Amino acid sequence: MINHTHDPSLRSWVSSAQVEGSDFPIQNLPHGVFRRRGSRDSFRGGVAIGDQILDLVLASSTGVLAPEIEPELRAARAASLNALMALGPASWHALRSELSRVLRQGAPEAHRLAACLVPQTEAEYAVPARIGDYTDFFTSWYHMVNAGRIFQPDAPPLPNFRWLPIAYHGRSSTVEVSGAPVLRPHGQTRPPANDAPVFGPTKRLDYEVELGIWIGPGNQRGRPIGIDEAQNHVFGISLLNDWSARDVQAWESMPLGPFLAKNFLTTVSPWVVTLEALAPYRCALPRGVDDPPPLPHLRGLYAFSSGT
Amino acid sequence: MINHTHDPSLRSWVSSAQVEGSDFPIQNLPHGVFRRRGSRDSFRGGVAIGDQILDLVLASSTGVLAPEIEPELRAARAASLNALMALGPASWHALRSELSRVLRQGAPEAHRLAACLVPQTEAEYAVPARIGDYTDFFTSWYHMVNAGRIFQPDAPPLPNFRWLPIAYHGRSSTVEVSGAPVLRPHGQTRPPANDAPVFGPTKRLDYEVELGIWIGPGNQRGRPIGIDEAQNHVFGISLLNDWSARDVQAWESMPLGPFLAKNFLTTVSPWVVTLEALAPYRCALPRGVDDPPPLPHLRGLYAFSSGT
Repeated sequence: MINHTHDPSLRSWVSSAQVEGSDFPIQNLPHGVFRRRGSRDSFRGGVAIGDQILDLVLASSTGVLAPEIEPELRAARAASLNALMALGPASWHALRSELSRVLRQGAPEAHRLAACLVPQTEAEYAVPARIGDYTDFFTSWYHMVNAGRIFQPDAPPLPNFRWLPIAYHGRSSTVEVSGAPVLRPHGQTRPPANDAPVFGPTKRLDYEVELGIWIGPGNQRGRPIGIDEAQNHVFGISLLNDWSARDVQAWESMPLGPFLAKNFLTTVSPWVVTLEALAPYRCALPRGVDDPPPLPHLRGLYAFSSGT
Repeated sequence: MINHTHDPSLRSWVSSAQVEGSDFPIQNLPHGVFRRRGSRDSFRGGVAIGDQILDLVLASSTGVLAPEIEPELRAARAASLNALMALGPASWHALRSELSRVLRQGAPEAHRLAACLVPQTEAEYAVPARIGDYTDFFTSWYHMVNAGRIFQPDAPPLPNFRWLPIAYHGRSSTVEVSGAPVLRPHGQTRPPANDAPVFGPTKRLDYEVELGIWIGPGNQRGRPIGIDEAQNHVFGISLLNDWSARDVQAWESMPLGPFLAKNFLTTVSPWVVTLEALAPYRCALPRGVDDPPPLPHLRGLYAFSSGT
């Protein structure tokens, strides 16, 4: 999966892309949905580069991008990334490859495209895609141990954890883009000394930093996606804050899991980093020495390493 | 809420509406989305009456319905009921009232509307609305006791049950209309004699018969809906089958609740019975003698009766 777009020596004619510590060098090129802050423009797709955003509506209108990628560009400049996400890895690569070409130092398109840049400081963002369903996975050993200490300090780890991707569904209508106001939720809690619960604002507002995984092409009901095919369905990854009311969670979660304690707000980054951009950083999942081998249907060709 | 549309003496010019045991007398008038089976027609809204469906696209084109309800009619004849559901109780009532008028015996509109009927035996249905999120509530004492016996025969009822509407989120993409094929899911289960789980088809396929509650108008995040206002947000109710893989559920559900055991299929009736149609059957929720009084925010004016 590593190709010319990952070349560490690539530089962009957008000079801020080369600033030490920039999140958005030319090797990244994440997608998002934005407009000029305070404007009445419609939201549209863009790609982050340095401290700028390449406005894909404007860039398309210049006519300097390869006509072969017009279907991908049409999807990528829309007010949500769903159409782009549905196209699949070959299309995502074609678009990335062309954007990498025209943004690199010396590209003859630089002059025309420089007029299509919007400073990130002048932008506001939307949730990058319409989210049909979302699932919160519980797969980090460290998080499992720490969360266990909060709710059941003396309980041993559950036996299913080493075998299953444990997860539950979230409420997609409360996913907002990073920066959305966090309103302290009210809920039922039961103070340790009380028999009866009380209703009021949560006293234990918390959040978990997670990875948001943006799924593109789906599958027909009843037709499983094999583990080695799974990565072809992943458009990209972003950071995600899973806001949580711990006192509400402790009282409500038995036996059906978290509900109101977790569905008042989830915030996501405005930028989705494609799986392709992350290819150089891929490594095998470390498994503990006591971990059992995965069941055959979870045993991917590239997914695991032994050792700690 | 009881009005002229509920009058038990009302009869329809659609004679099958008067057949003993018909689900669809003129006092019901549920909404759904359908087309002629095997046709390439677009799905459209309809109302069940007797063994027929009043096709609201055709009915609108006759011009015999009151022009005042054109906004409601436009919403009700669409390929999903979302727009109708968003309009709120006053609009739902106006539409029901007009449909009740033109479908009753002696209505001068009968001749023109008779040509707009499609036999239910010749129809196929879609899920009545696009479902943004759905929530599975666990609120029946009897179900709680019986489900407890399946999974934890010796455990006492959990203390939160008498205080909270316990619930979890489902996967809205697997809600289908009644009659959809039920594909036996595969999953991890752990046979009692084994330490290691096995992967394979569920051996304990089950379903729960539930009520599907179709929510119409929403609320702004952070602005709660008071309990006495809640009913104004409910468009209607239908039957729902919650398909379940009990052996998968037992192994996967701790600590985050059901997941793959419950998200492979949920089927709903094609017909949504409006809350208004159900008004004559409304009764207070019976509470057990040992039940604590609800917390103040759950104490509605009309919601509870004491005693069993």
